[in-house]
Amino acid sequence: MTVPQFKQLRRAYGFDEVAIVPGEFTINPELVELGLDIGQHHFAIPFLASAMDAVVDPQFAIEMHRAGGLAVVNLEGVWTRYDDPAGMLQEVAAASRDEATTILQQAYQAPIRDDLIARRVKEIKAGGAVAAVSLTPMYTKRWAPIVQEAGADILVVQSTVTTARHESNSAEGLRFDKLFKNISIPVVVGNTVGFNATLEIMRTGVAAVLVGVGPGAACTSREVLGIGVPQVTATIECAAARDYYFRETGRYVPIITDGGIRTGGDVCKCFVAGADGVMMGSPFAATTEAPGRGYHWGMATPHANLPRGTRVTVGVNTTITKLLYGPTSRTDGTENLVGALRTAMGMCGAHTIREFQQAEMVVAPAIKTEGKIYQFAQAHS
Amino acid sequence: MTVPQFKQLRRAYGFDEVAIVPGEFTINPELVELGLDIGQHHFAIPFLASAMDAVVDPQFAIEMHRAGGLAVVNLEGVWTRYDDPAGMLQEVAAASRDEATTILQQAYQAPIRDDLIARRVKEIKAGGAVAAVSLTPMYTKRWAPIVQEAGADILVVQSTVTTARHESNSAEGLRFDKLFKNISIPVVVGNTVGFNATLEIMRTGVAAVLVGVGPGAACTSREVLGIGVPQVTATIECAAARDYYFRETGRYVPIITDGGIRTGGDVCKCFVAGADGVMMGSPFAATTEAPGRGYHWGMATPHANLPRGTRVTVGVNTTITKLLYGPTSRTDGTENLVGALRTAMGMCGAHTIREFQQAEMVVAPAIKTEGKIYQFAQAHS
Amino acid sequence: MTVPQFKQLRRAYGFDEVAIVPGEFTINPELVELGLDIGQHHFAIPFLASAMDAVVDPQFAIEMHRAGGLAVVNLEGVWTRYDDPAGMLQEVAAASRDEATTILQQAYQAPIRDDLIARRVKEIKAGGAVAAVSLTPMYTKRWAPIVQEAGADILVVQSTVTTARHESNSAEGLRFDKLFKNISIPVVVGNTVGFNATLEIMRTGVAAVLVGVGPGAACTSREVLGIGVPQVTATIECAAARDYYFRETGRYVPIITDGGIRTGGDVCKCFVAGADGVMMGSPFAATTEAPGRGYHWGMATPHANLPRGTRVTVGVNTTITKLLYGPTSRTDGTENLVGALRTAMGMCGAHTIREFQQAEMVVAPAIKTEGKIYQFAQAHS
Amino acid sequence: MTVPQFKQLRRAYGFDEVAIVPGEFTINPELVELGLDIGQHHFAIPFLASAMDAVVDPQFAIEMHRAGGLAVVNLEGVWTRYDDPAGMLQEVAAASRDEATTILQQAYQAPIRDDLIARRVKEIKAGGAVAAVSLTPMYTKRWAPIVQEAGADILVVQSTVTTARHESNSAEGLRFDKLFKNISIPVVVGNTVGFNATLEIMRTGVAAVLVGVGPGAACTSREVLGIGVPQVTATIECAAARDYYFRETGRYVPIITDGGIRTGGDVCKCFVAGADGVMMGSPFAATTEAPGRGYHWGMATPHANLPRGTRVTVGVNTTITKLLYGPTSRTDGTENLVGALRTAMGMCGAHTIREFQQAEMVVAPAIKTEGKIYQFAQAHS
Repeated sequence: MTVPQFKQLRRAYGFDEVAIVPGEFTINPELVELGLDIGQHHFAIPFLASAMDAVVDPQFAIEMHRAGGLAVVNLEGVWTRYDDPAGMLQEVAAASRDEATTILQQAYQAPIRDDLIARRVKEIKAGGAVAAVSLTPMYTKRWAPIVQEAGADILVVQSTVTTARHESNSAEGLRFDKLFKNISIPVVVGNTVGFNATLEIMRTGVAAVLVGVGPGAACTSREVLGIGVPQVTATIECAAARDYYFRETGRYVPIITDGGIRTGGDVCKCFVAGADGVMMGSPFAATTEAPGRGYHWGMATPHANLPRGTRVTVGVNTTITKLLYGPTSRTDGTENLVGALRTAMGMCGAHTIREFQQAEMVVAPAIKTEGKIYQFAQAHS
Repeated sequence: MTVPQFKQLRRAYGFDEVAIVPGEFTINPELVELGLDIGQHHFAIPFLASAMDAVVDPQFAIEMHRAGGLAVVNLEGVWTRYDDPAGMLQEVAAASRDEATTILQQAYQAPIRDDLIARRVKEIKAGGAVAAVSLTPMYTKRWAPIVQEAGADILVVQSTVTTARHESNSAEGLRFDKLFKNISIPVVVGNTVGFNATLEIMRTGVAAVLVGVGPGAACTSREVLGIGVPQVTATIECAAARDYYFRETGRYVPIITDGGIRTGGDVCKCFVAGADGVMMGSPFAATTEAPGRGYHWGMATPHANLPRGTRVTVGVNTTITKLLYGPTSRTDGTENLVGALRTAMGMCGAHTIREFQQAEMVVAPAIKTEGKIYQFAQAHS
Repeated sequence: MTVPQFKQLRRAYGFDEVAIVPGEFTINPELVELGLDIGQHHFAIPFLASAMDAVVDPQFAIEMHRAGGLAVVNLEGVWTRYDDPAGMLQEVAAASRDEATTILQQAYQAPIRDDLIARRVKEIKAGGAVAAVSLTPMYTKRWAPIVQEAGADILVVQSTVTTARHESNSAEGLRFDKLFKNISIPVVVGNTVGFNATLEIMRTGVAAVLVGVGPGAACTSREVLGIGVPQVTATIECAAARDYYFRETGRYVPIITDGGIRTGGDVCKCFVAGADGVMMGSPFAATTEAPGRGYHWGMATPHANLPRGTRVTVGVNTTITKLLYGPTSRTDGTENLVGALRTAMGMCGAHTIREFQQAEMVVAPAIKTEGKIYQFAQAHS
Repeated sequence: MTVPQFKQLRRAYGFDEVAIVPGEFTINPELVELGLDIGQHHFAIPFLASAMDAVVDPQFAIEMHRAGGLAVVNLEGVWTRYDDPAGMLQEVAAASRDEATTILQQAYQAPIRDDLIARRVKEIKAGGAVAAVSLTPMYTKRWAPIVQEAGADILVVQSTVTTARHESNSAEGLRFDKLFKNISIPVVVGNTVGFNATLEIMRTGVAAVLVGVGPGAACTSREVLGIGVPQVTATIECAAARDYYFRETGRYVPIITDGGIRTGGDVCKCFVAGADGVMMGSPFAATTEAPGRGYHWGMATPHANLPRGTRVTVGVNTTITKLLYGPTSRTDGTENLVGALRTAMGMCGAHTIREFQQAEMVVAPAIKTEGKIYQFAQAHS
């Protein structure tokens, strides 16, 4: 009897561990084409705002539409539990760090109301925007018809980990293939991180896939559950599934990296890893348009028994347009993300996102040179 | 003469370096089966409390039994040296950090009494609990008969490193095969970290094996001796030995990862690495039921000449049932460990611990996103 | 259809991750030969000062020439926008950290004047020094003739990433082969990081290549764009291109590692990685001869929409000659860089830079032993 | 013409990156045999004290001899420049951190006196100890005869990097083969780090080799020169050279790991990497017997032009016998190093140092669990 091979662990990489290699030719940033298609909807820029209560409300979704991107309203959060959640949001903002989770747990005990689901969709449409709203798989069967009837354009079905095959003790778990018979609007599903899981989801007919488990700033899945895959590796594998599925079927299902993106550098790395779009929470939570008053929390934070997120302080220090287009005097990559994307694509000689996905990336530890220099100055001045 | 190959060093991994990959299908946490068998004893949850003086006394063992797990009482610590160690425990708690080791060294100079060994076993039995008690190999021959006669259910023979073959200058070192002729209760042996050493121990007939050398919070073996193997790799190798031995003999000897486990994430990684159970010290030391008054120390700490542990401060901030079952408003994974295990198994599509052992794990650096966000907020707010 | 191989990421290394292995024989430092040739110009030491406004002005270039090296004056910075930039430099030095980028953005709005371009070149020549001046590719066609006519000896064409093939929406982008028909002085081009890109640039006829994208202390390209390759790997690849091109053509085009070099150790690692010269900004910015008054910023810092650099504080704490030749009582490698280079070459048995390029280097994490010792002392004293 | 392979960088490891794996059998620490032979001299324990001015003076050498080890007196430091260096040592101890290097540079300007060389040797002999003294290669030819005539037992020829082949501009550089014709006492040579360099040195007839370039606490060669190899890898390679040379010639030349050793864990890792002995500076500098008054500096620190070491604060907090044999109440491995070595050998089933050299070691990041626990306590108490 031979000794068994020990369990093997592949290496996975996050944003801070990689860097993009410039190309062998370069192009002017103005020559770069951006854009993202989800179902029949075209977006000028491949940026999405996360379906998180502190980030997106109907008004934010309208502003984001004007900026060329897409913001998703969470239909299982405070906007469908309260006519006006302003007081509750104020309470969260006023809470100490230690109280915040308990207050969130209490606030989310209020029931979700059918009328508010429809009302939020209509508010977005009234603003002229593409209405994208999110549900968890558990409630999708119940509320998806209401959502569609209210006029939503895109349904996002999202949980920490969503798979095409889910086993529950109810006989009536969500089956995506059945769902697609009942509703006709494009459905985006997430989150996922692996090749096979992504391929299976694509085969059910989804319009796009959200990539990422664990990396978000407001998510503590890794501490609580040990589950999570760094975003660069997750995106690389899901992009491979997309390309495989495209060669198999001729249908191109975009993948959107969701979670942990904070700077222009992170955005660019998502695309080089293979993403078609990026979804961000924290950066948008810090805009004046966001309802979170400078705070931000994940949708698993209010879980009554096993919260897996924290309230994080992001401040209010930018606007949607400054965040996306600048101009800026910040030098740390936290504003003008579209400008950064154009510039990086130019340096890699990429005319399109599809070409940028082919750029080279190396494993390289994050550089902290400024600290060095300060240390140098303190030692000798 | 050819140049010799240089000594090769394999890479070993600890909890903070790995992450679990969600599965290709998912199941509801309620459908998950937990449970651990040691000899004829079945435990509802695969959680054990360490045989450490600041963690387990007879009353704690009774409470842990009620919670569905197993706590082991150390028979070579203060509970068998003092009728009532309360004063000594109070003194340790009151000591400064610098004095603590010296006070522990002095306290453990008192002799171990046969009558107290028997008394502690009977106290646990009187509470209706499975009585599991621990001895070091050096004293096992002498006290194992007393332990058995007093009615103990499980004997744990434990030292920093225990092997099936130990050479001592006494002619009468412990031989496990001989021991098993004299006592009939199941014997759990530890600690070990390697494939061959574990296989040899299993072949002596032990009921379970404790895995882990060096990683515990109260252990400084790595600084003092340079010895230690990170727990993920140690568990992977010992699990391979268990599976090898099972295929060889048809007897399944569970392995229990012992040391360094602090969060639900750590717990889950143990099982994905191959564990059948987890043994924890520090987390249980912080319960109101623990005798350590918010402090914790390893059993090598009181060593007179070469202490290899420190008194660590853990606080008193939870209970056995909150630690295991919640509910909680903590978001760092330090409470509701059973809930975390169920949720993670569900995300990996594992109905049982045996299936969860097959989940995928990647090497991925621990994420420190919150720090990033704070930094972001401070820079721009 | 087979599963596609996932995108592969090579490992890249920076200064702090490698160390030089001493040789099998050793030589006295006095026996070591230094020196660098660019076109027909020979420099006694292979050290260059960066074309950055806070580092080099015409007077600095003259002093650097006297010290045996070469300093490059930036022709698109303050020296060609202001008759006397002293007031503006004073304002930058007096600004708070938060204001600095905005002030730099404003200061660089002033137009570049043809007369000042010519004047700066003549000032350097008047001091008896080799006049090396830099332009970005965008303005090279326009100002290169003026530069040459004014008597410049070396033209540096430099941007964050420069390639032999650049696509712009103007029909008249810079083509190096065309440029070389119009001007006869040697042209140094940069920056680049890869084998193919470097080889292509060498084939256009350049006199030397600057290596490095992203690593400089005053550069934040990695945060903003995600682009950057650590200098050791960048230098290794570009050196391979130089050697390949040399075998192909017999023409030896030196490569100069530019960015992130701070200590004698960094300097030595550049050469062992394959460099023929090193270009430094921050260390020279801290000399009394530098115009930056103890501050330093990258040339991408003043970008109006997407600044990619910061003002860093370096202090004024050395002189050009002390930095290069000592003597020093500093023990952290930040002075006497030429002495360090000679000593290291001696320990590696290298008579020349070309031999030193063949020394062995290992991947080894930076050692922080002093911290350890302090910790040790604090714990026990 | 094919693309050249890029320069390859091997991975090298230091103490904090590895851990020893316990063995498949274990033995009682009392059964372990220690001991080291250099030439005809046998030492009960394989511990040496470094030839550094703040560590060893003649009286220290006598005390170290009594403790069973060997201390080397530096013959080019203060003990041969001053009749009584007490005042100078006091001045170094009183200096601020910034002044220390300058004061050391000045103090070492005093000339070395022949009479003091002889006197120091005789002082050690008068104390009944084995007299081991060190010279640099540059001065060995001149002073080796005086050393031998004065009665020294062992000569150590030591510089940062010493090779069998050194090229100098004097026609009369040191040749070890010639040296060995003129003096008959055993000669220990160092330092070296590579297989080939070590093999060449062994072939000249040396009695032992010192291993290590760069890792010491008081050494900054890595910052200043970029040169250095982490000690675990250096020891592994030099041990391979020793074994190769032994198979080639039948002569066993012990290797002594020198530099960066601070704890029992570090000591044990040296032997598992292949060392026959360990040489330490900082730990001995902190003994009451050391002349450094709680400070410590490397012999390259006083270099007039390019100092490559710093004065480090170690405190005075132990004695030679406590450091080596305990007893101790420290739990961080900084006392009872011989006890730690015996215990670790027992856990690895090694009866002798030669067997311990065969133990397994893994690459594993240093564990910082205590910090974790404190963080845990602070968060929840």
